[in-house]
Amino acid sequence: MSRIDGRKNNELRPVKFTRNFTRYAQGSVLVEMGETKVICTATIEDKVPPFLKNTGKGWITAEYSMLPSSTQSRKVRESSRGKVEGRTQEIQRLIGRALRSVVDLDALGERTLWIDCDVIQADGGTRTASITGSFVALVDALNKLKEEGAIESIPVRSFVSAISVGIINGEAMLDLCYEEDSTAKVDMNIVMTDRGEFVEVQGTGEESPFAKADLMNLLELGEKGNLELIQLQKEALGAIADAIENK
Amino acid sequence: MSRIDGRKNNELRPVKFTRNFTRYAQGSVLVEMGETKVICTATIEDKVPPFLKNTGKGWITAEYSMLPSSTQSRKVRESSRGKVEGRTQEIQRLIGRALRSVVDLDALGERTLWIDCDVIQADGGTRTASITGSFVALVDALNKLKEEGAIESIPVRSFVSAISVGIINGEAMLDLCYEEDSTAKVDMNIVMTDRGEFVEVQGTGEESPFAKADLMNLLELGEKGNLELIQLQKEALGAIADAIENK
Amino acid sequence: MSRIDGRKNNELRPVKFTRNFTRYAQGSVLVEMGETKVICTATIEDKVPPFLKNTGKGWITAEYSMLPSSTQSRKVRESSRGKVEGRTQEIQRLIGRALRSVVDLDALGERTLWIDCDVIQADGGTRTASITGSFVALVDALNKLKEEGAIESIPVRSFVSAISVGIINGEAMLDLCYEEDSTAKVDMNIVMTDRGEFVEVQGTGEESPFAKADLMNLLELGEKGNLELIQLQKEALGAIADAIENK
Amino acid sequence: MSRIDGRKNNELRPVKFTRNFTRYAQGSVLVEMGETKVICTATIEDKVPPFLKNTGKGWITAEYSMLPSSTQSRKVRESSRGKVEGRTQEIQRLIGRALRSVVDLDALGERTLWIDCDVIQADGGTRTASITGSFVALVDALNKLKEEGAIESIPVRSFVSAISVGIINGEAMLDLCYEEDSTAKVDMNIVMTDRGEFVEVQGTGEESPFAKADLMNLLELGEKGNLELIQLQKEALGAIADAIENK
Amino acid sequence: MSRIDGRKNNELRPVKFTRNFTRYAQGSVLVEMGETKVICTATIEDKVPPFLKNTGKGWITAEYSMLPSSTQSRKVRESSRGKVEGRTQEIQRLIGRALRSVVDLDALGERTLWIDCDVIQADGGTRTASITGSFVALVDALNKLKEEGAIESIPVRSFVSAISVGIINGEAMLDLCYEEDSTAKVDMNIVMTDRGEFVEVQGTGEESPFAKADLMNLLELGEKGNLELIQLQKEALGAIADAIENK
Amino acid sequence: MSRIDGRKNNELRPVKFTRNFTRYAQGSVLVEMGETKVICTATIEDKVPPFLKNTGKGWITAEYSMLPSSTQSRKVRESSRGKVEGRTQEIQRLIGRALRSVVDLDALGERTLWIDCDVIQADGGTRTASITGSFVALVDALNKLKEEGAIESIPVRSFVSAISVGIINGEAMLDLCYEEDSTAKVDMNIVMTDRGEFVEVQGTGEESPFAKADLMNLLELGEKGNLELIQLQKEALGAIADAIENK
Repeated sequence: MSRIDGRKNNELRPVKFTRNFTRYAQGSVLVEMGETKVICTATIEDKVPPFLKNTGKGWITAEYSMLPSSTQSRKVRESSRGKVEGRTQEIQRLIGRALRSVVDLDALGERTLWIDCDVIQADGGTRTASITGSFVALVDALNKLKEEGAIESIPVRSFVSAISVGIINGEAMLDLCYEEDSTAKVDMNIVMTDRGEFVEVQGTGEESPFAKADLMNLLELGEKGNLELIQLQKEALGAIADAIENK
Repeated sequence: MSRIDGRKNNELRPVKFTRNFTRYAQGSVLVEMGETKVICTATIEDKVPPFLKNTGKGWITAEYSMLPSSTQSRKVRESSRGKVEGRTQEIQRLIGRALRSVVDLDALGERTLWIDCDVIQADGGTRTASITGSFVALVDALNKLKEEGAIESIPVRSFVSAISVGIINGEAMLDLCYEEDSTAKVDMNIVMTDRGEFVEVQGTGEESPFAKADLMNLLELGEKGNLELIQLQKEALGAIADAIENK
Repeated sequence: MSRIDGRKNNELRPVKFTRNFTRYAQGSVLVEMGETKVICTATIEDKVPPFLKNTGKGWITAEYSMLPSSTQSRKVRESSRGKVEGRTQEIQRLIGRALRSVVDLDALGERTLWIDCDVIQADGGTRTASITGSFVALVDALNKLKEEGAIESIPVRSFVSAISVGIINGEAMLDLCYEEDSTAKVDMNIVMTDRGEFVEVQGTGEESPFAKADLMNLLELGEKGNLELIQLQKEALGAIADAIENK
Repeated sequence: MSRIDGRKNNELRPVKFTRNFTRYAQGSVLVEMGETKVICTATIEDKVPPFLKNTGKGWITAEYSMLPSSTQSRKVRESSRGKVEGRTQEIQRLIGRALRSVVDLDALGERTLWIDCDVIQADGGTRTASITGSFVALVDALNKLKEEGAIESIPVRSFVSAISVGIINGEAMLDLCYEEDSTAKVDMNIVMTDRGEFVEVQGTGEESPFAKADLMNLLELGEKGNLELIQLQKEALGAIADAIENK
Repeated sequence: MSRIDGRKNNELRPVKFTRNFTRYAQGSVLVEMGETKVICTATIEDKVPPFLKNTGKGWITAEYSMLPSSTQSRKVRESSRGKVEGRTQEIQRLIGRALRSVVDLDALGERTLWIDCDVIQADGGTRTASITGSFVALVDALNKLKEEGAIESIPVRSFVSAISVGIINGEAMLDLCYEEDSTAKVDMNIVMTDRGEFVEVQGTGEESPFAKADLMNLLELGEKGNLELIQLQKEALGAIADAIENK
Repeated sequence: MSRIDGRKNNELRPVKFTRNFTRYAQGSVLVEMGETKVICTATIEDKVPPFLKNTGKGWITAEYSMLPSSTQSRKVRESSRGKVEGRTQEIQRLIGRALRSVVDLDALGERTLWIDCDVIQADGGTRTASITGSFVALVDALNKLKEEGAIESIPVRSFVSAISVGIINGEAMLDLCYEEDSTAKVDMNIVMTDRGEFVEVQGTGEESPFAKADLMNLLELGEKGNLELIQLQKEALGAIADAIENK
């Protein structure tokens, strides 16, 4: 029994990274996972939040937003409401943690990397696509810093990517699209490094609690998906990826 | 003496409309004017603001936002600040007025057209590009409504576009890029219809007041620019444009 | 065919400036244009916004507000809503630009002039009356600074005033009252100096686009109105006006 | 030993009520107590807050604000801050309670009286002047309602006024101006009716607690001041005052 | 005729102070007055608000909040609304003034005492219980400062407590519970020191103005209640209370 | 090698549930896990959010807050800041999901259960303690509803509890206190039912990614802890727990 869009249960949607998508941020990537499209940018600022002043350490902070027209029914703009939703804040914090986990903040020096993830079309998995795409933008930005001679090498310890998995009609599936996501009984986001380690595991069975066996299946699917994504990140980054790996 | 980018004083930057840029809004256009790029979408909602209830009339409301990474130095996200800037509100109001001026709101019926202009790259003239691009998105959305049989014809009375003009080093120039805009002594935005009428004229000489003769030159340049833009809108819309003109 | 209040099309309403209307601000003027009444004050603060620190330059910033009881049906207080409306912000920005255009900010030194325009009765034209009245308050405040020996002369390059014009029932009219304003097809605010130059031209034909000939008529009317207003400002300021002109 | 402005300890400042100060609110009074000047208006709205719907009862709600230029050093506008200060809310609640205490809300019917107190010049005692002036505006508004035939008589049970008293240099004084107020060790606001009853008594000895004997002296002074103020309200209202008293 | 809960008109509800109720604040007291329960804490911070910098003086600031579940019908959380109610601000200001009136802020040095009053169960008199309980927490916090050698003695000039009184069915009653409070025609909060002086007197007769004789009765009742409360504070504080009195 | 407080790695801190802690909410529980103390209440409201109107289904919504004095250094009150932090929103959403996962919302009928978790003392694990304690409060509230005859049985499908686990100095530990939590390299919150199923699994390795083997150890520890907690919930609820299990 195949999926809505004909994929196999353990198959990713087509993935595409367009680097240098816009021109002002040091890193700018349009990431597409099927119909989900997110502009991920990385901007370097030469100062850090107050709690890091004079520590020599850098910081990474992420913001996430959906264009009102990105969803099937128009979404109210958060700036019009005057406040940022809980869901948005949760996602922003997740992206920030994921990227900080693989960057050597000491080697970054007293700089802030601003990561902006702006969803222009949402078909499920926007938070995981944001992490996967932002990592590429972040590497591009750090590479520019290196080329300018501000740092000696790109201070990245591992590659990082993220993917969603879930259980739909009793079957574990990889990389859920919106329609699948809204019928999933269990929904999990898995963030991993290229060394096969976990950075973040978030699974929710609001509709129905899940057994340990389900959890094991989902972890395995997530591992497969992330390894494929990281391979694609490496291809997109080409020689820069090699420089990181051979460090 | 030619301009920064080699254009003549009365020359537009390259203009490009990409229709159906995203998939959920009824109208979705990426408009590019040189390096300025704005996603303009039009979404139809089957209700109107309270002041129009039971009047049979429709409404058009516009929102405008710049992605943080769209500008040369990263712009703070308005949702993070918790409030919409004065400049943004001014632009939103301008776009809304411009589009309402050419739509027959009675024929639209009790519907709201939500126009969203999200700037992904800003090199001057984002507000005028937003008007020019939104008009195309709006026609696409209205055309869908017509195809669904909800309205008999596209309730648009005229085409509308907008362009900036200004005086730099004593010379009147058309379609200012960011660098020109920031050195202009006089800066004017002109919104016009395909009948050569004015919808909005906003000229500011904050740095130095300007003479009537300057105003006349600027109006003429603006007229030239708008007529060219409207011609490009018509080409982009093809047969749908014809349907409007022959009404 | 005469107007609602019997005026001729090119006639201003009765104008009155009451200087020293309140006692704490350095400049305080009640300006009346017919039934429109605005308290305009200018307060000098010995510091500038961050972007001007250590530049030796001064700044002028304006705030505008309507008392809840100033309008025909009570207006909700913006402080109660917790946010400033788009219209208010637009007007504040306009007043600030108009005044800055005629003041030598270098000669002002590192000081901020706070302009407050509080409408106590609104019968159309409150933004233009605010500009016209604020200019008088600003001159009074600068004159005090001069009398205290803080500056050598009043750093004002030109007089500035503003007036509304519009097209009602096909006729161009000067200085619209509220009832006229709400039926006008075209509405324009014109800010000018005593040298006959334009500082700001804002014309809107939301209800119906307008021809170039209309625009020409409106500009001419506006010119006439502003020259009369500036004459009245000079009379109100007496010897201080002379000091500015003979500079 | 006389006071800063030469008054006796038990003497009010000159009091002046200007009725019909502005034209749109049903009641509009400029109240002056020495250099303290407040525009008090009363606007009638034909609906009540949710908790009174279908009870047949009316409501009175008050808002208070100081113009930025009303104080010796410019006060930041509450709408710019985005929130109403604690002091403002305290005063608004006080004015509302004072007026509700003397109005028959059942006889008012399902209407809201909006009281707006906008201070245009502040020299101490703005909250008490607001109560005293608002009462006159409220009576004017209710009288209009009566003249329109909407109510049979003015539903006011008593006159109400308010005055400040305090202890300065060990002496009890009536109607403190700003300079006195800022050096007072004890500061009290007393709201009373024409029947000599208390509506509100608020005394604070933040700087130094006070003895019962002091309290007694202050109450007596406050009583004297309020009786004089109510006499002045009656004179200002003329025949309308008689109509209330003879009810 | 006895009261709802069988008390005499001049009788307090059972009072209980639990010191060291929580462990992190320097002073932490659960105060219970009948069914009213408030956690009062005092936290010392080694800095002062801007207006006191380099004056050598300290400050006391109070915050008050009710848990949503503290009231008979659940109260909306102020953080969810995004703003603090007028009533809350009024109470916070009252608590702050009351405590500051008895503390020698010069002797405190450049420190801020943060007082937090969090109502966990509300049965009337929460603001007065907050003052009475906070005083005990404040003394505990100051005592710790003394024990650490930061100050030589506890800089408290007097004890301070507060109680509500009111007129119900024509009778003056002490320490109103919620049910009494909601039927009271006159409601008064009285803050006093152990020397029998008044710090704050706030009486309101919104429902019906009150005579001077009523006021006298209420003041007397309040005096009785406060003296009893202060006795209980002294018992709760034991030897620390002695140290303050013998200073 | 034992832990800071002498516990074994797989040992919970002492747990205590005080039911009926306050009197107005239908369910009110003080939960203590070592020095972490949270007041959890459940209030029933007879209406549902708009998206559930006329569906016959109920809803559960949770709010979480920390008293300013609950933490080692005083925490700024969210109501004073005017906004709810991202961390708070994340926790509120988590508590809500956890409780909804075990309640039959159809059987609840069109009612909302408001869960309030107010932390009065925080020593790590406040979000998990909130879930564990809230479940007991929720059962108490539903039991009252049953006793009133509004529902036939308590619509709870499973017991639910939550616990934190983490890796400190390379060792997996159960129920982290604050000091342990702040040095943990991996931190995980696990929400489970009495059937040994997972409701939510949230693991974060911000400081250092973790291997699958670590994840397995943590899941096992979490399972042990949750089964013990659920046993304690059952003991606290006594006969009511039996009624749920025998359903």
